[in-house]
Amino acid sequence: MNHSTSSVQLKSVITSAELLNHWQGHRNLTRSVIEAFPEKEFFEFSIGGMRTAAALLQELISIAGPGMRQIATGENEEQHHTPDLGNSKDHALKLWDEGTEQINHYWAMLPVERFHDEIVAFGMYPGSVCSTILYFHDNEIHHRAQMYVYLRALGIEPPAFYER
Amino acid sequence: MNHSTSSVQLKSVITSAELLNHWQGHRNLTRSVIEAFPEKEFFEFSIGGMRTAAALLQELISIAGPGMRQIATGENEEQHHTPDLGNSKDHALKLWDEGTEQINHYWAMLPVERFHDEIVAFGMYPGSVCSTILYFHDNEIHHRAQMYVYLRALGIEPPAFYER
Repeated sequence: MNHSTSSVQLKSVITSAELLNHWQGHRNLTRSVIEAFPEKEFFEFSIGGMRTAAALLQELISIAGPGMRQIATGENEEQHHTPDLGNSKDHALKLWDEGTEQINHYWAMLPVERFHDEIVAFGMYPGSVCSTILYFHDNEIHHRAQMYVYLRALGIEPPAFYER
Repeated sequence: MNHSTSSVQLKSVITSAELLNHWQGHRNLTRSVIEAFPEKEFFEFSIGGMRTAAALLQELISIAGPGMRQIATGENEEQHHTPDLGNSKDHALKLWDEGTEQINHYWAMLPVERFHDEIVAFGMYPGSVCSTILYFHDNEIHHRAQMYVYLRALGIEPPAFYER
């Protein structure tokens, strides 16, 4: 057994490349969901006192790129919860695409051996690198699914869930 | 390097036990979301022409336990889309708990080396074992999040997303 092979890796079932691909596939779908919203409703529509799609997207943008940068660099500044979407879907999509690039950039800096390091994301949320990344994915799927309901309530057919 | 260590495992970042734990944590949360629904609304309420929470749960029940059995045993019979929830939340929760046990049972039969095998879930959906399992997780998070919106629309506070 090679010295660099840890016992954790011997029990592992998902590669780093697969996990990145899984995330970026979901980000493609989330982008399509944003595109499906009419401009006005993206910023104004909600159900049951929940946040608008724009406010949900602010959360996702504030987590993905900055969170991945923290994981790669070891910084842990507080989460900046309300990035400025500039009141246009186009600007929101631009920020989304920047996050996508950030993820790719910082992922490339993250060696396989680091996925079980213990970290404190945004100085507040303890976990391993891999549990933190899974949480980011899950949180995106969760809030995007809420946008699906908003679209249905607006009479708009959302993109298919399996299209990534 | 041990002969049983594949090159895939050397690039891997999530263990089999972590992936099972991730799933079961989500299943705990989904169970709490079902519990939060009033009996009548669980079977009748929906938004924008979508399925009721009960019908969404039928889908999740028809996938998790049976899907995991197929992965472990190599069977691939068609998905049975509408398991009988018996018109009571109690019965639905009983089926949910049976699914949870099935997952644990069949997971224990699945060696680490099999997670990159190519399969055809339910005779229809090609993918690797690991991409199929991730799809099951994602699909559960997606439909549960829609139930969150139903609860909010009904004026009910759903369980916290991070409680697993």
